[in-house]
Amino acid sequence: MLCRFLERIHAAGADSIGLLGSTGGYAYLRREERQRAVRVAVECVGGKTPIIVGVGALRTDEAQTLARDAKMAGADGLLLAPMSYAPLTDEEVYQHFAAVAEAGGLPLCIYNNPSTTKFTFSDDLIARLAKLPNVAAVKMPLPANGDFAGEIERLRAITPDSFAVGYSGDWGAADALLAGCDAWYSVVAGLLPSPALALTRAAQAGDSSAAARINDAFRPLWELFRAFGSFRVMYVMANLLGLARIEPPRPILPLSQEAHSRVEEALQNLKSVSSSIP
Amino acid sequence: MLCRFLERIHAAGADSIGLLGSTGGYAYLRREERQRAVRVAVECVGGKTPIIVGVGALRTDEAQTLARDAKMAGADGLLLAPMSYAPLTDEEVYQHFAAVAEAGGLPLCIYNNPSTTKFTFSDDLIARLAKLPNVAAVKMPLPANGDFAGEIERLRAITPDSFAVGYSGDWGAADALLAGCDAWYSVVAGLLPSPALALTRAAQAGDSSAAARINDAFRPLWELFRAFGSFRVMYVMANLLGLARIEPPRPILPLSQEAHSRVEEALQNLKSVSSSIP
Repeated sequence: MLCRFLERIHAAGADSIGLLGSTGGYAYLRREERQRAVRVAVECVGGKTPIIVGVGALRTDEAQTLARDAKMAGADGLLLAPMSYAPLTDEEVYQHFAAVAEAGGLPLCIYNNPSTTKFTFSDDLIARLAKLPNVAAVKMPLPANGDFAGEIERLRAITPDSFAVGYSGDWGAADALLAGCDAWYSVVAGLLPSPALALTRAAQAGDSSAAARINDAFRPLWELFRAFGSFRVMYVMANLLGLARIEPPRPILPLSQEAHSRVEEALQNLKSVSSSIP
Repeated sequence: MLCRFLERIHAAGADSIGLLGSTGGYAYLRREERQRAVRVAVECVGGKTPIIVGVGALRTDEAQTLARDAKMAGADGLLLAPMSYAPLTDEEVYQHFAAVAEAGGLPLCIYNNPSTTKFTFSDDLIARLAKLPNVAAVKMPLPANGDFAGEIERLRAITPDSFAVGYSGDWGAADALLAGCDAWYSVVAGLLPSPALALTRAAQAGDSSAAARINDAFRPLWELFRAFGSFRVMYVMANLLGLARIEPPRPILPLSQEAHSRVEEALQNLKSVSSSIP
């Protein structure tokens, strides 16, 4: 089943695949389950599309073990969120990242996701982390003030030239890409890679009207992502698209029948528009 | 080592012992480690002081397993925090608690700890949960407005008579107990049970001047709890008291030497005052 998802993303021409991110439910999976996912992914699309594997864990030693596992299985990069129970200090996050980046020995992306981790990275901390060997990129949340260009410029000024600044929060992707960010860490592309790639390429080419048109087609879906959380909506989508019959891990509950209908409408809307997407 | 801690708490006359709470680092421990802790605790103080065991986990099925483990090992009650990665809805937390309370088959305390779980319980949700079989108590954070009496009255009005309303946040314990709450879920009592019990009994007896005097002796320690997080300070205290040579689980870092000195001073202050505590 996982391979089917990944082949569609590869076939659509994605620059890389994020495996075991928040949408992949990494936080709910045991080591063996994560090992198996990486193994399957590498067998499926390894050497064709780079695979970036989420290795977050509450303990530093566990995250280090997961990073070594991912490298050994053939991952191309790592994604690390500062998962926490006791709220973490900047220095604790720095040491945690340094330890995992060293253990992993692969390019590592800082996963800045305050809504799941309760931790917000300051510019200073990102600058310090970007100096570490292997720390190669950051996955930012959407800026509260919407000023992508300003934030990207600010982050580029304090990080090495090779350091990549990307965004998550699918509803802000068009703006982020048009403002010149290096990557869209997309949720929706996991199930709808073609229209997500169409949006990406239009925005990267600076074609703001094409990007806006595709983004508009996605808009009903973005509204549902924001209302219910993209994690919950993606389970509904996987079922509606006939790709899998799956439910989220409890305590996360399946969405209501009414929400299902709204997701179905949003997909219909996207389909009717996306046939006209180049 | 664990038994040494627990015997001191029992000897001081605590009403119950919270095992594997936030300060016990439950979130960082594997199932086998938690099983061992409960086994040791039951061997050590079982049948003498009731043992309430933290069984929080990110997955409902894991929390259920931990609850069954705790019961099987002889625990007297359970403590459950809605740990989360993807932020949870009220209904998800309700279903999670219902499933774990049923699996555990022991009196269960709702652990309302927004700073570690990112989830805040509404009055409505507490009222719904309090109707479930086995859900017997709530461990509240300190009210932002300091109005303990008002909050206790409000919660008592929407929960059964047998439902216990208690507080955590050691620096608010004196006020909470003087306002008539049913329990102080104390951090400091794990290492300093005698002065914590002296504070508790004074406040429970309505002796506000005695309670204030003891609370004043604790005040430098409360300041450190608030500045560094009680979890980090308790590790320093365990070392300074000669009870254990331990460090917190990474990513949590040991406190600096300067902080150590401040903890030492706070303990000295408490000692010099507490010899005069009845």
